[in-house]
Amino acid sequence: MDSLAYTPFDRAEFDHRIERARRAMEENKLDAIVVSSEANLEYLSGMVTQFAWVTPTRPFFFVVPRNGDPIGIIPEIGHTNWLDTSWCTNIATWPSPRPDDEGISLLGELFSGLRRKHGRIGFEIGPESRIGMPVADLWRLKSEINYEIADCQLLMAKLRLIKSSAEIARIRLACGIAGQAFGELPRSARIGDSEQKIHREFMASLIMKGADAVPYLAIGSGFGGYTSIIRGPTDRVLGRGDVLLLDTGSKIGGYYCDYDRNFAFGKPSDEVLRVHEALWLATEAGIAAARPGRKTSDLFHAQADVLSSHGYNVGNVGRFGHGLGKIVTEFPSNAPGDQTLLEPGMVFTIEPSAEYDDKIMAHEENIVITEDGAELISPRAAREIPVIDT
Amino acid sequence: MDSLAYTPFDRAEFDHRIERARRAMEENKLDAIVVSSEANLEYLSGMVTQFAWVTPTRPFFFVVPRNGDPIGIIPEIGHTNWLDTSWCTNIATWPSPRPDDEGISLLGELFSGLRRKHGRIGFEIGPESRIGMPVADLWRLKSEINYEIADCQLLMAKLRLIKSSAEIARIRLACGIAGQAFGELPRSARIGDSEQKIHREFMASLIMKGADAVPYLAIGSGFGGYTSIIRGPTDRVLGRGDVLLLDTGSKIGGYYCDYDRNFAFGKPSDEVLRVHEALWLATEAGIAAARPGRKTSDLFHAQADVLSSHGYNVGNVGRFGHGLGKIVTEFPSNAPGDQTLLEPGMVFTIEPSAEYDDKIMAHEENIVITEDGAELISPRAAREIPVIDT
Repeated sequence: MDSLAYTPFDRAEFDHRIERARRAMEENKLDAIVVSSEANLEYLSGMVTQFAWVTPTRPFFFVVPRNGDPIGIIPEIGHTNWLDTSWCTNIATWPSPRPDDEGISLLGELFSGLRRKHGRIGFEIGPESRIGMPVADLWRLKSEINYEIADCQLLMAKLRLIKSSAEIARIRLACGIAGQAFGELPRSARIGDSEQKIHREFMASLIMKGADAVPYLAIGSGFGGYTSIIRGPTDRVLGRGDVLLLDTGSKIGGYYCDYDRNFAFGKPSDEVLRVHEALWLATEAGIAAARPGRKTSDLFHAQADVLSSHGYNVGNVGRFGHGLGKIVTEFPSNAPGDQTLLEPGMVFTIEPSAEYDDKIMAHEENIVITEDGAELISPRAAREIPVIDT
Repeated sequence: MDSLAYTPFDRAEFDHRIERARRAMEENKLDAIVVSSEANLEYLSGMVTQFAWVTPTRPFFFVVPRNGDPIGIIPEIGHTNWLDTSWCTNIATWPSPRPDDEGISLLGELFSGLRRKHGRIGFEIGPESRIGMPVADLWRLKSEINYEIADCQLLMAKLRLIKSSAEIARIRLACGIAGQAFGELPRSARIGDSEQKIHREFMASLIMKGADAVPYLAIGSGFGGYTSIIRGPTDRVLGRGDVLLLDTGSKIGGYYCDYDRNFAFGKPSDEVLRVHEALWLATEAGIAAARPGRKTSDLFHAQADVLSSHGYNVGNVGRFGHGLGKIVTEFPSNAPGDQTLLEPGMVFTIEPSAEYDDKIMAHEENIVITEDGAELISPRAAREIPVIDT
């Protein structure tokens, strides 16, 4: 793959995002929002970088005030990268590293020039947030400005929840890449391979097929099943009677897929066939239940009911899927206590898991909510667990 | 590579880390420290996961009290993963997702049972920190407990600064993997390749050679030089007269290498040869200046002096290298204002960069400070820029 596999977002896409953000700011009584996390900064500013998210030395900020131009407040080293990738040419920079003032005085000056209405500024501090700056810097800023620090994480999560067709195209692309890699696995993995080897070759395969990055690739294996669905590879060697799980959050153009596949090494036991069948049916039920007007809790119950009717406990995962997009798990959860109404453009994982003996098995597919139902965007797993017997 | 390429850290290594942490806690008047970021949680607890760091839904905490047993406070889903990888079997779990209480009441209970001496608890809030929990949860906790929230980031950064031989072995391994991949590049990259293609194949090569992950891989290219040292790939096609930069933070066993290489496509111009030579000599000077008793500022000036004597400006990077280990850029900076004393076991990048025309060129090597100097752990770049001419 030599060139970009997707169309860049056009300016109208970003204008629409900023417009929706401003509407939500008004509802939330915020005079400005400041985003510093990868997902939210990239979503609003369009700035694409790996740099800011692996090295914590220099924070990057994007500020959307209620009135006036949005602005990037960034370290000097990011100047070219910003202008090359963001729609926004309005930036202020500081020479960084400067540990005693990493952008804080620039933020303070900006706030003092804001037209004050609500007296509140939103930072990413709410549920599921990971702010992209040191907390002590936020506290210092709080003590120096005449504004209340409020949350903008939930506002951003809700904005990002409804995807544009251009965003869905990227998630679909990520799903397709993983689908090709999963499809080839039975021809490359062998009885006698280690988890390390399978994991490494699968990750390289995802990259060569077009993934920009593979930030998440869990692997599990064991005789008759595995015990964790979130672990990295060990040097365990796979033998006959084993079950293998691979679960990947692969990324392209800033968007993730997130789904898994199970494989039997040699003839699977009756028990493995039974739990695989129950999970496959639970996934079917979850997909079938997904349509506008239903709730995330309905997605959970549709899946849980199938598992219960097959006699399985629901395990310790706490939910049967979640939002998917610029983060591998985003708001909301398909959980009994979550009442988010499904709307067209939302992207979810349908992800039942079941306990049996001391083991757990998980299935996962990715869907987008449409006008009258849901469309599967990951290639549907085979109903019978694929067998690797060479 | 089928099996683990490095020896697991033994229990003595972790005992030593906890003991050093406790000494630092006493100096910093802290009754406990709570770590929730990947680098610090992994460093102290040994727990290895990708899961916690890509999905922000469920935070993981590791608490080291002044007295008594350290404890992992983790979501139920992480139970098996924790016990499989951490030396610490003392854990408390909660059913997550539970957005209104993601581990916060468990932390509160733990603090109320602490033996109080200083009245302060350390969280990762200081310079270069990125806390692994929502800020609003920390604020809530702060209001509910009878302890001052202090910083433990600097304490942790200083602990991690002196590496054990087992840690250095992993960084050396990462350096070696990248060295192999860089070494092969002139045989795989071609005039007419796009940045996308070179980037993708180089990333897959790093993974197949043993990297667990490639969280950072910057690429730059342009006729006579590039303009940014921190960008991702574009679909720009490389032609004769171009200079290519690849800079990778590749990871193995939780430790990074961080160095770059430049390549000329076709015959390099005199100017490219000149700046490459100046940077190569600046790197030599940086390595030669590195020995116990010198300061990080000395590393900067040694490199800057060479560049000045060759007539180059030092660019907008703000430093000429930094600490390296569990994060691709860690404390401290090789900067004029940083006076950290070099000690055996510290690992640094030596990383001069120079501006010419509207371009920038960077060089980078990795070193470990020894008893009487410094040892190069990345394979030294060729003095003349390698030429790709096919």
